[in-house]
Amino acid sequence: MTERIETVADIGESGLIERVAARLGAAGGGEIWAGDDAAVVASAGERLIYTTDLMVEAVDFDLSYCSGADIGWKVVAVNASDVAAMGGRPRQAVTTLALPPDTTVSFVDALLEGLTAAARRWEIDLVGGDISRGTEITIGVALLGALVGSEPVLRSGARSGEAICVTGSLGGSAGGLLALQRGLAGPGPVEGHPLSPTLADAVGRLADRHLRPLARLAEAQALVEIGVSAMIDVSDGLARDLDHLLVASDKDCDELDFSTLPVDPDLHLLAGALSDIQLDPAEAALSGGEDFELLFTIDPARIEDARDALGGMGTELTHLATVVDAKDGGGWRQLERYKEKSWDHLRSP
Amino acid sequence: MTERIETVADIGESGLIERVAARLGAAGGGEIWAGDDAAVVASAGERLIYTTDLMVEAVDFDLSYCSGADIGWKVVAVNASDVAAMGGRPRQAVTTLALPPDTTVSFVDALLEGLTAAARRWEIDLVGGDISRGTEITIGVALLGALVGSEPVLRSGARSGEAICVTGSLGGSAGGLLALQRGLAGPGPVEGHPLSPTLADAVGRLADRHLRPLARLAEAQALVEIGVSAMIDVSDGLARDLDHLLVASDKDCDELDFSTLPVDPDLHLLAGALSDIQLDPAEAALSGGEDFELLFTIDPARIEDARDALGGMGTELTHLATVVDAKDGGGWRQLERYKEKSWDHLRSP
Repeated sequence: MTERIETVADIGESGLIERVAARLGAAGGGEIWAGDDAAVVASAGERLIYTTDLMVEAVDFDLSYCSGADIGWKVVAVNASDVAAMGGRPRQAVTTLALPPDTTVSFVDALLEGLTAAARRWEIDLVGGDISRGTEITIGVALLGALVGSEPVLRSGARSGEAICVTGSLGGSAGGLLALQRGLAGPGPVEGHPLSPTLADAVGRLADRHLRPLARLAEAQALVEIGVSAMIDVSDGLARDLDHLLVASDKDCDELDFSTLPVDPDLHLLAGALSDIQLDPAEAALSGGEDFELLFTIDPARIEDARDALGGMGTELTHLATVVDAKDGGGWRQLERYKEKSWDHLRSP
Repeated sequence: MTERIETVADIGESGLIERVAARLGAAGGGEIWAGDDAAVVASAGERLIYTTDLMVEAVDFDLSYCSGADIGWKVVAVNASDVAAMGGRPRQAVTTLALPPDTTVSFVDALLEGLTAAARRWEIDLVGGDISRGTEITIGVALLGALVGSEPVLRSGARSGEAICVTGSLGGSAGGLLALQRGLAGPGPVEGHPLSPTLADAVGRLADRHLRPLARLAEAQALVEIGVSAMIDVSDGLARDLDHLLVASDKDCDELDFSTLPVDPDLHLLAGALSDIQLDPAEAALSGGEDFELLFTIDPARIEDARDALGGMGTELTHLATVVDAKDGGGWRQLERYKEKSWDHLRSP
């Protein structure tokens, strides 16, 4: 006899809501969380940061290599990263969830584990949500945040002569996705790919970059305190996000020295291990999205302060280029082909 | 030659975002709307109401009788109704949207029309969102609101001896859904159902109750000012929502006189026109959901004040029952069978 695996159709919407409620913390200080028509939360200040992100099965994640916990983690992280890039600190989130009726309860439990783990990590209160049925799993998070400084940091604040810098390393998430798609990393046994321990460690780290991204919140807070003029998170790929920032600021930049790009070092190991395709680490750093690093502009005189502050957190800082007046630099032309490779949700996959 | 119909795959995610942005108003007063990593909005007060609702194609709506504009309107209305039921006034919304690539641009335009029309109606600023691809259309809205009074109105505030009242009429949305499913109302030609002008008007109004619900915001504000102790919107059906309120308050109620239920008068006309099934208007009023009326408890001495205030808005008030100590009344037992008929998103449809 095989034991029947419990699905969300078995426990129903009310059973699932009870399961969610049991994982939420207790509201304090006049707040009301799940269980009424809406939540009541303390305001984060006179102005609030407000964002939302949506992840859909088979589009934004694939269950062949993502666990429920990975998905729950990531949808919180990508929202928190948006708040970080505005110069903010996240506060309260609400969640929407569409589930096929045959989704197992254990999968939902894992998803809730991932959501709550990421929420704890970035001190986010999950205060409510809504559940429906869907053909595929769809999860959305809306997140409120507080301003760290007196003003938000917009994409549009870059000034000519300022340094364009990025935190951490790039291309790791794209490399992780490739490794997962190839079966080099992930939940299943690695077939036909006997990996050396060094390579196995590298693909494991790359997979983590893709599945369990980190929002650079402490870094954003430090950068706001030091003073940055414009900021964006690297979600669409460096070339495209730099373009977003420069267009919003009506600026250009001089040419980047691709040899100094902060390419994720594990990418080189992965590239060496893939004999059948050409993986260009610099291209992955320029076109690969979802690294969730912070791309920002700063007075060149403050770079060392920023480097020191981030260094104390174990996060590198790379000076990529200099902001110049619109159309004066070579950056726009140089990056054009890397922007085109970026992802569009609605065009053919 | 047939002209090819433009789809969202043709214009892509960036084209769609431009289309959305063109419909958003202009942010003022230090606010930042779509176009950056997140929105920045003015806080609605020291405490905020925060809610979210999700609508999924073929589960929460059916394209055979819902237009894009209906869907956009309704997802805003259901969120606004939640804010109303907390004793609030809506302020700012963010939206998530998953679309199949073959969704026509004209459908999306209609959906945006519906969203923005409802937002204008209830003075909501649409400040941002996120788009992905999906097998079916999925739309989520997260909504922030301000408290009308100094405290929110919870489900848990009912006191013994208070009057249980409801605004407007009940069952109309369920009747409208039935009429739409039967092809008596809706976009297509009414086949095999030659309707009298009176009946056609009635099913048209019922369909509107289902497709274009109204959030009782002005009513909620008046009730908060007069003083109500507990409130919930009728989204799951009167029996189930009354149960939610009484359970949260740890109370029961005396028996309802079903002959005095504020049944939508058009339901009687519809019931007469359906020869093949038995439509019980009282049962539709008790079990049918999505009427979005306000169910509340109030000091009996204030009922007439409330009736006068709501009457000035053209909205009826019906005194349904009286709150009694838990398990002392007959209401719980009387309503049991009507609660079971209510909708569960995850069990078999």
